Amino acid sequence: MLYELTVTQFTKMFHNLLSILDKANTFAESKKVDPEVLLNSRLAADQFPLVRQIQIACDTAKLGASRLTAKEAPSHADTEKTMSEVKARIESVISYLETLSAKDFDAAAERHITQPRWEGQYLTGHEYVVNHVIPNFYFHITTAYSILRHNGVEVGKKDYLGKMPYKK
Amino acid sequence: MLYELTVTQFTKMFHNLLSILDKANTFAESKKVDPEVLLNSRLAADQFPLVRQIQIACDTAKLGASRLTAKEAPSHADTEKTMSEVKARIESVISYLETLSAKDFDAAAERHITQPRWEGQYLTGHEYVVNHVIPNFYFHITTAYSILRHNGVEVGKKDYLGKMPYKK
Repeated sequence: MLYELTVTQFTKMFHNLLSILDKANTFAESKKVDPEVLLNSRLAADQFPLVRQIQIACDTAKLGASRLTAKEAPSHADTEKTMSEVKARIESVISYLETLSAKDFDAAAERHITQPRWEGQYLTGHEYVVNHVIPNFYFHITTAYSILRHNGVEVGKKDYLGKMPYKK
Repeated sequence: MLYELTVTQFTKMFHNLLSILDKANTFAESKKVDPEVLLNSRLAADQFPLVRQIQIACDTAKLGASRLTAKEAPSHADTEKTMSEVKARIESVISYLETLSAKDFDAAAERHITQPRWEGQYLTGHEYVVNHVIPNFYFHITTAYSILRHNGVEVGKKDYLGKMPYKK
C-alpha cells in the first residue's frame, strides 16, 4: 500500500505534471514570452515560484521513497532554470522511483523516519506517509498547477488527476 | 489503512483548515473588508472561488467515506455564504467522519465504487482512494490555502500540515 501511495501514484502525478508543463510551454510560445517567466511566477511575494514548487515536489517524492526503503536517491543541485532542465529533473526522479519495487517497502511501515530538522524525533514510515509525504507532495503539485492556471494556461482537473483505472 | 488515509487524516486537515479560516477572518477584520470578499476570491476567472473549493473538499471527504463504507452521509445544499456558514459546513463533515470507525472500512478496499459521471464503470475502493479521493481532497484544500495566501493572509506550510505525531 505505501508503495502504491508513493511510487506508483507519484509517478503518475509526475507524468501528469510533464503534460501540464508541455501546455505551459505551448502557452508561452503563443504569448511570445519566455517559459522562464512562468517558472519564476508565484502566487504570493513570499511563496516559492513554480520552479521551486516543482523541485520540492521532486524532493518530497524522492526523499520520501528513499527514507522508506533505505535505497539511496540521486542528488540534485536545484540549479534548474529552463523548462527542459525542469522536465529533466522530474524525469530523473521518475527513473529513480522506477528502480524501486513493492518488495523494497516490506519494512517501510514500521521503519523509524527522521530528518535533521526534527531534532532527534521520528515518525513511523506509516505516519510519515499519511501525515507528511502525501499532504506535502500534493501541496506542491497543486501549487505548481495553480501558478500556471493563474497565469492563464488552460489546464483543468483532468490534467492534474490523469487517467483513472476504470473497469467495466 | 484506508480509514486512516481518509477519516483520520482528512479530519486533521479540516481542523487545520478551520484554523486557517480563523486567520483569514482576523486578516479581513484588520483590512476592514468583509470576509465574504475572501470567500469569493479565485486564482483564475474560470476557477472556483474559495467557498466552492471548501465545499468540494467537504464533499470529496464526505462522499468518499460514504462510498467506501456504504454509510449514508449528511446532505448539504451548497448555500453557504458567510465564514460562519462555511465553518459550520466543515464541522458537519467532521461530525459525520467521527461516526465512522476503522471497522466500517473492513470491506472498503475491494468494494466497487462508481459515480453517475463514470457511465457504469467502477474503481475498487483501494484504487478510488489512491487515484481519486486523495489527490482531489488535497487539491481543493491546497487551492483554498493558496487563494488566502494570494490575498495576503499570513499562512504557512505548518498551518496546512498541522501537528506531526513525533515520537522520541
